[in-house]
Amino acid sequence: MAPQKLKIACAGLGRMGARHALNLLSRTPRAELVATFTPDAKEVDWARRELEPSGVTIYTNYDEMLKHPGLQAVLIATVTTAHAEEAIKAINADKHVLCEKPLSTSVEVSQSVVDAANRKPHLKVMCGFSRRFDASYRDAHDRMEAGSIGRPSVFRSQTCDRLDKTGFFVAYAEFSGGIFVDCNIHDIDLALWFLGQDSVVKSVAAAGVCAVQPELRRHADVDNGVGVVEFWGGKLAYFYSSRMMAAGQHDMTEIVGTEGKLVVNGNPTGSLVEMHEPTGVRREIPHDYWGRFQDAFVTEANEFTAACLDGTKLPLKLSGAVQAVQIGRALQESLNSGQKIYFDETGRRIEQARL
Amino acid sequence: MAPQKLKIACAGLGRMGARHALNLLSRTPRAELVATFTPDAKEVDWARRELEPSGVTIYTNYDEMLKHPGLQAVLIATVTTAHAEEAIKAINADKHVLCEKPLSTSVEVSQSVVDAANRKPHLKVMCGFSRRFDASYRDAHDRMEAGSIGRPSVFRSQTCDRLDKTGFFVAYAEFSGGIFVDCNIHDIDLALWFLGQDSVVKSVAAAGVCAVQPELRRHADVDNGVGVVEFWGGKLAYFYSSRMMAAGQHDMTEIVGTEGKLVVNGNPTGSLVEMHEPTGVRREIPHDYWGRFQDAFVTEANEFTAACLDGTKLPLKLSGAVQAVQIGRALQESLNSGQKIYFDETGRRIEQARL
Amino acid sequence: MAPQKLKIACAGLGRMGARHALNLLSRTPRAELVATFTPDAKEVDWARRELEPSGVTIYTNYDEMLKHPGLQAVLIATVTTAHAEEAIKAINADKHVLCEKPLSTSVEVSQSVVDAANRKPHLKVMCGFSRRFDASYRDAHDRMEAGSIGRPSVFRSQTCDRLDKTGFFVAYAEFSGGIFVDCNIHDIDLALWFLGQDSVVKSVAAAGVCAVQPELRRHADVDNGVGVVEFWGGKLAYFYSSRMMAAGQHDMTEIVGTEGKLVVNGNPTGSLVEMHEPTGVRREIPHDYWGRFQDAFVTEANEFTAACLDGTKLPLKLSGAVQAVQIGRALQESLNSGQKIYFDETGRRIEQARL
Amino acid sequence: MAPQKLKIACAGLGRMGARHALNLLSRTPRAELVATFTPDAKEVDWARRELEPSGVTIYTNYDEMLKHPGLQAVLIATVTTAHAEEAIKAINADKHVLCEKPLSTSVEVSQSVVDAANRKPHLKVMCGFSRRFDASYRDAHDRMEAGSIGRPSVFRSQTCDRLDKTGFFVAYAEFSGGIFVDCNIHDIDLALWFLGQDSVVKSVAAAGVCAVQPELRRHADVDNGVGVVEFWGGKLAYFYSSRMMAAGQHDMTEIVGTEGKLVVNGNPTGSLVEMHEPTGVRREIPHDYWGRFQDAFVTEANEFTAACLDGTKLPLKLSGAVQAVQIGRALQESLNSGQKIYFDETGRRIEQARL
Repeated sequence: MAPQKLKIACAGLGRMGARHALNLLSRTPRAELVATFTPDAKEVDWARRELEPSGVTIYTNYDEMLKHPGLQAVLIATVTTAHAEEAIKAINADKHVLCEKPLSTSVEVSQSVVDAANRKPHLKVMCGFSRRFDASYRDAHDRMEAGSIGRPSVFRSQTCDRLDKTGFFVAYAEFSGGIFVDCNIHDIDLALWFLGQDSVVKSVAAAGVCAVQPELRRHADVDNGVGVVEFWGGKLAYFYSSRMMAAGQHDMTEIVGTEGKLVVNGNPTGSLVEMHEPTGVRREIPHDYWGRFQDAFVTEANEFTAACLDGTKLPLKLSGAVQAVQIGRALQESLNSGQKIYFDETGRRIEQARL
Repeated sequence: MAPQKLKIACAGLGRMGARHALNLLSRTPRAELVATFTPDAKEVDWARRELEPSGVTIYTNYDEMLKHPGLQAVLIATVTTAHAEEAIKAINADKHVLCEKPLSTSVEVSQSVVDAANRKPHLKVMCGFSRRFDASYRDAHDRMEAGSIGRPSVFRSQTCDRLDKTGFFVAYAEFSGGIFVDCNIHDIDLALWFLGQDSVVKSVAAAGVCAVQPELRRHADVDNGVGVVEFWGGKLAYFYSSRMMAAGQHDMTEIVGTEGKLVVNGNPTGSLVEMHEPTGVRREIPHDYWGRFQDAFVTEANEFTAACLDGTKLPLKLSGAVQAVQIGRALQESLNSGQKIYFDETGRRIEQARL
Repeated sequence: MAPQKLKIACAGLGRMGARHALNLLSRTPRAELVATFTPDAKEVDWARRELEPSGVTIYTNYDEMLKHPGLQAVLIATVTTAHAEEAIKAINADKHVLCEKPLSTSVEVSQSVVDAANRKPHLKVMCGFSRRFDASYRDAHDRMEAGSIGRPSVFRSQTCDRLDKTGFFVAYAEFSGGIFVDCNIHDIDLALWFLGQDSVVKSVAAAGVCAVQPELRRHADVDNGVGVVEFWGGKLAYFYSSRMMAAGQHDMTEIVGTEGKLVVNGNPTGSLVEMHEPTGVRREIPHDYWGRFQDAFVTEANEFTAACLDGTKLPLKLSGAVQAVQIGRALQESLNSGQKIYFDETGRRIEQARL
Repeated sequence: MAPQKLKIACAGLGRMGARHALNLLSRTPRAELVATFTPDAKEVDWARRELEPSGVTIYTNYDEMLKHPGLQAVLIATVTTAHAEEAIKAINADKHVLCEKPLSTSVEVSQSVVDAANRKPHLKVMCGFSRRFDASYRDAHDRMEAGSIGRPSVFRSQTCDRLDKTGFFVAYAEFSGGIFVDCNIHDIDLALWFLGQDSVVKSVAAAGVCAVQPELRRHADVDNGVGVVEFWGGKLAYFYSSRMMAAGQHDMTEIVGTEGKLVVNGNPTGSLVEMHEPTGVRREIPHDYWGRFQDAFVTEANEFTAACLDGTKLPLKLSGAVQAVQIGRALQESLNSGQKIYFDETGRRIEQARL
């Protein structure tokens, strides 16, 4: 008898959703993709061609999908604005949940998902911070944990997208929560992972420019942002995000400790090929987030599946997703007000710097 | 109804065989691993634990395995000395075959597999030169085909293993065919791929040293070898193989054309992490062949499966496996005789250099 | 008849002073080191051995040195606190001046040197921002000027020293002006060079930690600092400085433009040697500032000499030295107050963010 | 009183000669360039402008130059065919000699220079193998000597020039001695330095192609050559030279030992600038030999000067220059005959491989 597989559904079949669905279908051996949901006609067509032949039922109504016979888990990859409601519905229907980041661009709404999950401790509920599943980030974290850099003290991380000349991200900015919530959320989550999930923010300050897309100001956003976050206890993180990289996606991180430094992806590379040409030596780099992190998404799907089937612990806490949104929101607020924002040792907002 | 899957068996569950079996089980969605063969008791135990629960039947007799109901294809990953006989039996039993390299260390025996395959043109029979499935090599080949380096003229390639202090490779040398047949076979195959599968050898000359394992001389082998192969028509390849790398596996290739150069894996890297330490900046590199090429093996299994199911063309010709062994053997002979070996424009061996 | 040489004196023979003196002696063909000044007995001894045999007169009184017959120029490399007074004296004595950075840690005192120089427009007076003479920075600047990255928009730069376990830099912090004035002054100067010398600061915000040397707080300083500087007109710079790098000196810069990015020294390297070892692949990096920039100091000395002899323009304006100190001081103040500091479009300090 | 300087003359003011002359003038503090010789009118003009104002006497007759009052040393940078005769004349006139490589493309003629030098043991006579003065090669050699890679066993080295589309090197090939004597001479010299100056050649075998310049066959030369040299005692070297690199000069070396490997200039780089562009990440590399090794030439001039003035030992033996030409000639002969060439343990040529 073949081992039991996790019956899972994929909600949302947009760019990321389709990728998640295919991962569940072909690269997650212990999962069985049984259902999918999308309200979008084009995506339904795609699912008819790519998923239905493998026995996946297609729903255009999320609630119907949740009632799919035997369904045990849901991967939510719809638009951000739908994440929280769908996650809570799934939890209430007793399904395990893997929700794409962020739970919501609102701290309160994000917290409501955590509250729902807390009421069902037997369920596995995870927010998909994919970089936590990346082999290189894990390697770096293991080395840090093993003491190789002494006490981590300064953390630098960036999420830099290739310039999308269609201007897609201007429209997108209306709902994204802004560059710090949309892009740097990953870096903030990593900062908490590397500096300590219990780190308490002391201050945040952000600045930014609209170098290529002035229209972003309409949505209180920028195309290049820099943020600095101080934590109580003598730790510091700083972040950069950009929408205008020429060469491709360049997400990188540096953890500076008292005895050494770890750098993750300091030199972005798309393949192992170098080209010697009349203009010099050239290499290409991944064009997008997927090109850099596709294997991490596979690991994420597999580990989530294993945790559901085996009842083992998830590698990251759901509450971390709220912390990250909280910091991202504060950075975005600081960007737009021009003010530095302060917090006391309990994480409560205060008016004045406390040194 | 789920799409049809290729019912495949894996013969041999040693180090590479076990990896192949797991790839077929978990990372080859269109294949169904239905049977396995190994005469080794420990490997049977392993298969009981790891494969049987997924419905794989375990055989200790290869011929019995071939009779497994519905079996369509066999992946052969037993010891090299068994490859050819097992491949021919499978072909005769009307099974598609994916055979680990080399078909045999003998040119004639290798050719007998090709002959058997030629009698069954409806079967897919492939020798697993894994590097042909590596994304970076493919990227380089595509670029060359697109004309980016002009006319390829000089080809350099190396297969360098990490020093195995157990001395395992001394015993192994008895049957390996020697370092040029065992290691550089990959580089030779790549040379044919990049310089033209129809390239005709003009001369071969090899030299080598036993730097760490003098006992290799017993098996007419060395632990470091350099070989030069001239092709008719003005193309040149040179190869290096070593068993004593300190840092890990370093397989790399350089294709020099009249207008540019492509380098594959000039800078070996294990992950995207760099460590800044008191002794400088350090990175680790893959420890073995698997660490470098594991994804290529997955691609290989998937493409072989697709070719069997869909009747499409395999990405490499079986006859190339004979060419590569032929060149590898000549290099090994040159190493041991100290003589340069010459061939005429038809590939026939001659006594004197012809310029 | 040999061409005329510039008769120059070197004031200060400490670590940097001695290097400057030797550069003037041996690597600045058009300069003739005729005199030197140091009040320090050990340095006098060193000068007797190393400089006197080449005809250099040693003075222990700065004013006496200025009267050396035929003296045309002075290179000032004494302690920072003496720079301004000595520079002004030299200017008043009608000597060209090359003064080590900073002119002073005080904005007003720095300005007084500029004022003195302005009264003697026939003299060449330069503050030695050595990185402006580094071949790689110049290469990057030329590329930017040629339009290769579009409009420069975000500037990142760091000055990171190797950890000096003697704790020297704690005592040093008493007079250094703090990490932003001492280290990041270089990065600030580069920011002005790359973003435009006429850039007007809109805000500065800084944060820092004492990760290895808590005693630095006595001098209102830190061992790791991060600063963000907004300029009016939509440009942004951010800086990092550290006293605790394990591997060595790592000063690097990144200029992000609307169409590309330039990185200077992203991968620090001490030589062209890479070591493959059982622990991986390793390279060493320069241990200190001198190891990275020694050639830049030679270029600086030669170009200053040429400007004095030929009456040509210096490659950087003296007033820039005041701008840089001004920004460095504001960052240091922000670090210590925890407050963000704002400026209006004319550069005047204001109380509130103006958006 | 200023310290005594070495009165030196520079013979030859072609591309390299002019560089040597300027180095002696401006970057060799202990040398005084007093005279120069060139029969070429254009070079005389250049010397009038660039050297005469600094007090350098210009000669159009080599013998006259040798009689320049007080002359102590000569740097010979004329055409290769003149090297030996001029060197012997200078030695006989009791001058120290720094001669550009090679002494001659003939073994016998090279030896005659060594013989002349041996008759005047008080003179410093050196053949300028510039790479021996390169900081990175020295760093690698020091590390090897310190035992960091165990016993050096396999040596790989290449000299690869940027494609010169004017075809200059075709005419040049008439007198160059061929690619192995002209280019790989450096690599051969390095092999002797790293594997032991007393290494005895056991066999040489070479092959090559004319990929871009078929006319080179007229001069029995190629534009890409590969050579393998076995040494008695279990050491192996292999070489590559090319005239058709697209990106620039790429000279590199790899020393493989029983416990590690050293790589010199595996990743050629022209400056510390990396460019992120829409086509990826790019760096430029040196266009020519000078771009890579100009500092080594300065070191060479300074160390030669010091040895002459102080009577200290030169860093390399003159006889090594004969060994290197001998090996280069044998490789070139093997290239053209298509035959492997054998030597016995005493270095005497033999007909058959001896194992």
